[in-house]
Amino acid sequence: MREVAIVGAGMIPFGELFHQSLKDMVAKAFQATLDSVDKGMRADEIGAAWFSEVQSVDGFPAGLLADTCGLLDIPVTRVENACASGNDAIRQAVYAVGGGYVNVALVLGADKVRDTSSSSTFWEWMSTNRDMAWDLPLGLISPGSFALHVARYMHEFGATREHLARVAMKNHHNGATNPHAHLRFEVSMEQVLNAPMVVEPFGLLDCVPQSDGAAAVLLVSKDIANRYTDHPVWVRGVGTGMDRIMHAHKEDLSSFAATRRAAKQAFAMAGIGPQDINVAEVHDCFTGVEMMTYEDLGFCGRGEAPRLLEKEETSIGGSLPVNPSGGLLSKGHPPGATGIAQCTELFEQLRGHAVNQVDGAKWALAHNVGGPTAVSAITVLEGPSA
Amino acid sequence: MREVAIVGAGMIPFGELFHQSLKDMVAKAFQATLDSVDKGMRADEIGAAWFSEVQSVDGFPAGLLADTCGLLDIPVTRVENACASGNDAIRQAVYAVGGGYVNVALVLGADKVRDTSSSSTFWEWMSTNRDMAWDLPLGLISPGSFALHVARYMHEFGATREHLARVAMKNHHNGATNPHAHLRFEVSMEQVLNAPMVVEPFGLLDCVPQSDGAAAVLLVSKDIANRYTDHPVWVRGVGTGMDRIMHAHKEDLSSFAATRRAAKQAFAMAGIGPQDINVAEVHDCFTGVEMMTYEDLGFCGRGEAPRLLEKEETSIGGSLPVNPSGGLLSKGHPPGATGIAQCTELFEQLRGHAVNQVDGAKWALAHNVGGPTAVSAITVLEGPSA
Repeated sequence: MREVAIVGAGMIPFGELFHQSLKDMVAKAFQATLDSVDKGMRADEIGAAWFSEVQSVDGFPAGLLADTCGLLDIPVTRVENACASGNDAIRQAVYAVGGGYVNVALVLGADKVRDTSSSSTFWEWMSTNRDMAWDLPLGLISPGSFALHVARYMHEFGATREHLARVAMKNHHNGATNPHAHLRFEVSMEQVLNAPMVVEPFGLLDCVPQSDGAAAVLLVSKDIANRYTDHPVWVRGVGTGMDRIMHAHKEDLSSFAATRRAAKQAFAMAGIGPQDINVAEVHDCFTGVEMMTYEDLGFCGRGEAPRLLEKEETSIGGSLPVNPSGGLLSKGHPPGATGIAQCTELFEQLRGHAVNQVDGAKWALAHNVGGPTAVSAITVLEGPSA
Repeated sequence: MREVAIVGAGMIPFGELFHQSLKDMVAKAFQATLDSVDKGMRADEIGAAWFSEVQSVDGFPAGLLADTCGLLDIPVTRVENACASGNDAIRQAVYAVGGGYVNVALVLGADKVRDTSSSSTFWEWMSTNRDMAWDLPLGLISPGSFALHVARYMHEFGATREHLARVAMKNHHNGATNPHAHLRFEVSMEQVLNAPMVVEPFGLLDCVPQSDGAAAVLLVSKDIANRYTDHPVWVRGVGTGMDRIMHAHKEDLSSFAATRRAAKQAFAMAGIGPQDINVAEVHDCFTGVEMMTYEDLGFCGRGEAPRLLEKEETSIGGSLPVNPSGGLLSKGHPPGATGIAQCTELFEQLRGHAVNQVDGAKWALAHNVGGPTAVSAITVLEGPSA
């Protein structure tokens, strides 16, 4: 296996992009990513591409990427793995580049959630992304599905809605200064606790916004990395774990088994452990999911996540800053783009140029959990000094 | 890169499977494939899986495969590349196994076209799988899209509807004896020519049926292949090529540029040429597409495809039998399963146990073309004697 480097990463500002088509978003994210390569890269140097797209609202997905970016001579593949699509698509490219099949790979993620031009809408997609026989008729689309987990966790470990609010306050604080973020405002404890209830225990500000957006990374093999930059970021570990689809079949609602499985793979491949991570972008689709994920990733022991929040250990300046970009809660969540945008943020963190820079960060982790909490994908990155 | 072997391949009979859910089909194809491994394989030996599924009619696709087959600890990824999904999914697994990341990989394809349980129907999928601005409003769903190409080819090279009918007669003749085929009957020249017109130049018997089905292959690295069989089939080449989505943007309608691009990659990787192929499964979604594809794959020169059919060179007993399984026209076409089922057929051909055996076949090729003729995926296989 060859070592795999990220030499470019870019994104467009997430938001309600009614004025941009999916093609516009893809083209802009592609150009931003090519432009991010220190020593430059031409599109015709790319040997294969992956498109992380969940909803498919504007024609043939892989073809849309190929056509829009002029990448007709190379393989382009759509990867769909619910909200874990982004980091799972990066895994495919790592195999191709690390395996010696491809020298330069593009992984681009995009989704358009706020408006659609076809009969395949966000809510129709939601309906096909659940167990169809039992969970869907019970209303277990995304908010209800995650709420079952978080409510159980709160019951077992004495966490409160104030703990959840701390996640929203932290991530909105970080995102408020991120020019790429969808919701660039701070929120107070009172605002979070008094926001309209969506599904117990999540008020509106505990929930991710629906965002449009696109992001991309460029992966190359080690032997050619210095053609493109003197400061490559290394992909050291990838992992994807699954879980039962039906909530009645999950062994323990107070934990995300998919995340534990993905983390085990990614850390084993990287040869490091959670204690080595200096900065992480974690899938905070709902506040309580970030809190629980601290434990599933091994950032703390069972039941200790609320204390981590009380001590602000995951805030910037703490021992392990999580979601310095603002996370999904503030930066936004176009499902196909989310995992890629996490790696774009961490690329900048590890090169020392992020908006909310974590000083001296050497190891970083990006994490998605998606579908009916039945898939997680994780990428472990190491900075250029290594 | 490690050499990659197919050590197991299975499928369920294609057809109108109203009595089987997608989960039933997946479970049966998975079991048939495990059972096909000469020396046996346990499910827990599988290190990663790919799910080729186009329509997503029953919940979260990757999760459905993981949950149904009990593959929770390993990465499972859905690959969607329109009707080229099957062979494109195999490419992902080749990278993973050949690259040294995974020792045993499952690639399973399935789709349910004849009935759906959700709001996401076949025709809604069709509508999102085209150029949405121009081609779709003009009616360029699959039959019309391919008809534009074939009509142009016929105009330029003097091919006739009788040539197209020869493809239907040949493939139905082959499929009539294939217990896995959807439409197991012979058709005559008169029947093909007199069938109700779908879209010029395609009558009903020039068109693929809509089928439900599932198929799978098991890929392993060379160093462990003999644990599973003494007769492995080798994956020597993979390739995926793209083309413009809009028909107005295609350079030459009398050829499929995506196929030419995929073939160039796959043959280069395999280190052989089209003249070396002994048996092929080619994407005959419409009769004329198989005919044109002979040229795009290099099986004959420009304009020579009609003569190949007149001389029955692609019939069993000819110099290069194409679609001995019955092809899509007779065996059926559940989009996600189609490419995998082609490789299942060729696995049996290269091991000498196919229903319509091509004597002494050593090299085989599987080919898909899909979407708005904007993607093609090809797999080149070599038999065990090598």
